Amino acid sequence: MEDMASSENGIIRVGVIGGGQLARMMVPPAIHLGLRISVLAETEGMSAARAADAVGDYREPETVYAFADTVDVVTFDHEHVPQPILRELEARGVAVHPRPEALLYAQDKILMRRRLAELGVPVPVWATVSDEAELQAFIEANGGRAVVKTARGGYDGKGVRVVSQADEVRDWFTALAEDGRGGHLLAEELVDFVRELSQLVARRPGGVGSAEMRTWPVVETIQEGGVCAEVLAPAPVADPATLEEAARIGRTIAEGVGVTGVLAVEMFETRDGRVLVNELAMRPHNSGHFSIEGSVTSQFEQHLRAVADLPLGDTSMTAPAAVMVNVLGGPAEGPMPVRYASVLAAHPRAKIHSYDKLPRPGRKVGHVTVTGEDLAEVRAEARAAAEMFR
Amino acid sequence: MEDMASSENGIIRVGVIGGGQLARMMVPPAIHLGLRISVLAETEGMSAARAADAVGDYREPETVYAFADTVDVVTFDHEHVPQPILRELEARGVAVHPRPEALLYAQDKILMRRRLAELGVPVPVWATVSDEAELQAFIEANGGRAVVKTARGGYDGKGVRVVSQADEVRDWFTALAEDGRGGHLLAEELVDFVRELSQLVARRPGGVGSAEMRTWPVVETIQEGGVCAEVLAPAPVADPATLEEAARIGRTIAEGVGVTGVLAVEMFETRDGRVLVNELAMRPHNSGHFSIEGSVTSQFEQHLRAVADLPLGDTSMTAPAAVMVNVLGGPAEGPMPVRYASVLAAHPRAKIHSYDKLPRPGRKVGHVTVTGEDLAEVRAEARAAAEMFR
Repeated sequence: MEDMASSENGIIRVGVIGGGQLARMMVPPAIHLGLRISVLAETEGMSAARAADAVGDYREPETVYAFADTVDVVTFDHEHVPQPILRELEARGVAVHPRPEALLYAQDKILMRRRLAELGVPVPVWATVSDEAELQAFIEANGGRAVVKTARGGYDGKGVRVVSQADEVRDWFTALAEDGRGGHLLAEELVDFVRELSQLVARRPGGVGSAEMRTWPVVETIQEGGVCAEVLAPAPVADPATLEEAARIGRTIAEGVGVTGVLAVEMFETRDGRVLVNELAMRPHNSGHFSIEGSVTSQFEQHLRAVADLPLGDTSMTAPAAVMVNVLGGPAEGPMPVRYASVLAAHPRAKIHSYDKLPRPGRKVGHVTVTGEDLAEVRAEARAAAEMFR
Repeated sequence: MEDMASSENGIIRVGVIGGGQLARMMVPPAIHLGLRISVLAETEGMSAARAADAVGDYREPETVYAFADTVDVVTFDHEHVPQPILRELEARGVAVHPRPEALLYAQDKILMRRRLAELGVPVPVWATVSDEAELQAFIEANGGRAVVKTARGGYDGKGVRVVSQADEVRDWFTALAEDGRGGHLLAEELVDFVRELSQLVARRPGGVGSAEMRTWPVVETIQEGGVCAEVLAPAPVADPATLEEAARIGRTIAEGVGVTGVLAVEMFETRDGRVLVNELAMRPHNSGHFSIEGSVTSQFEQHLRAVADLPLGDTSMTAPAAVMVNVLGGPAEGPMPVRYASVLAAHPRAKIHSYDKLPRPGRKVGHVTVTGEDLAEVRAEARAAAEMFR
């Protein structure tokens, strides 16, 4: 048919595994840029269901292989697809970005810490611990407290505990022992930080001479209960050297680990002026949602460009300041749309993003971004608008 | 199912009749704002096919009624849905925006001219003409030339001819005679203009006291061969009175005709300093594509808000200047994506919009927008990027 456009016309088909809000927010730039996007959602009715061409379990090899057959490149909404499936995809000739050997470091925090040590990237004091005695020794050597993390499966504060006694994670040690694969927990010093930062980096395989990379301005992230609550862009950091160090770390990791797509490096700015890496994510990240309105190229568009190996876009900010505030569900609220009339009327310049998810306590159901000239002013407005959803 | 969100959760379902690029570009803001959007596309493979939940003929009453049953409000990608179908939808209790009695003026240029005359809006000298003798008399009374338009069905320069002899539209008179319904052509003076302007207005049914309206900054539109080629925002008009007059005209028409949704008023700025209305469109319009990046609230988001009767958003510009350049298909080109690598590499801050349409000579297949500080500079960059697709 005359009007039928298809991948034969040079249109790149991107397949996203995982149907959450990150996949959802990749759809708008795919539409604008004229890429075809498909989503393999875990269940019906997920956040990215509008774009879901398939529903199935990403831990089922045949489900993933069948989905991959319909696209030109596979990428992710989350880091949970098992390595054997990822490696088999590559063996079958499917383009997978980020590649399995890079994604591994976002899947396993102990492997990540080891790789960062090899790269010479500054990190908090850490150790792997296999029992309570080892952990207790670490706690006592590090001021009487420690941050303990499971190597796998944590997100939004899950799999992370701040402890002063080793028996506070006895259940995790018990689970490791029952698992019988000789696993460890990760123990880290409790960093005395003044601010949490996030450096977003995008990297694609191709480029002139070497792989092309772009960084966004470093942002400050404000956590509440282990969950991202607000992001201030750019980070109100006094010392330019801090910003340079964050960008240097971001680039070093992206290059050293061989990331393709967007990498988010969460960092601590310490009271004594150092920058230490806390966590990594190899996908668009909550700390980059401000970029939808706040950057010439959003993290979602850039991720698509990067995994499709298209030249990367300008990461300049569109305004001097952008603030994003998450909308977290609570027990008393209805879904976001029932509040639209009052929020939109009160805040005509706030950009409301709903993930089309039913609220549960603490669940991220949307976010609000305001851009403008003055960070304090736009922060106040973004907070006020988000507050109306609570 | 726990995660299943549906319209019972307050989510408004917007149905768009027509599957072109305007429907396509309504999808991203619908995703962000958490509205459900469905599209009734004329054929498979159209520009908005990603969101097309139905394919069918908008001139078939039962097709339209079945589609309308699945949504909360019906709106449009084009003005061609027959009035009897629109009125029957309303009779069945379906919310239709813009309403049939408003849309009528975008469907019939003669009715529109009459209504504008009633509203006291300045327009070019015009007359309805039913035969060549009447047209020849009009031509002679207006300096030897006239713009002749068919009352219905014209777009992108189709249905419009500049003539100096009445027999140059003999085919149109013949068609009217064969039609047998006593139709007329519209004859207008050929306006001596310095610039073409477009005023975008959004209006929703509700508001405090009266229907809420918002206007965007007036833009300049540059046509080539009757087709929009470039849009400069804001219009580089020297006299602030011209901008005020354009906004006053836009508001007068939106209110006087009872528009809901986005209204585009195309106007001439005459050499003697007047502003005259040329055409109307009651939907997002090519002259407003700059607003995707250039305005806090794009025309597509605003149209959705307006037809859903949600409070309207801020129409301020996000930068001092925005320029949009259309990408028109030609005989020698492939589809846009085959040029992406070179265009994106050369113009990292250009925002590329592909409509996923196969190129044909003169067909709008996409557009490029650049925003920045200096109009001349962003215009040069937008042109250069668009040129690479030609």
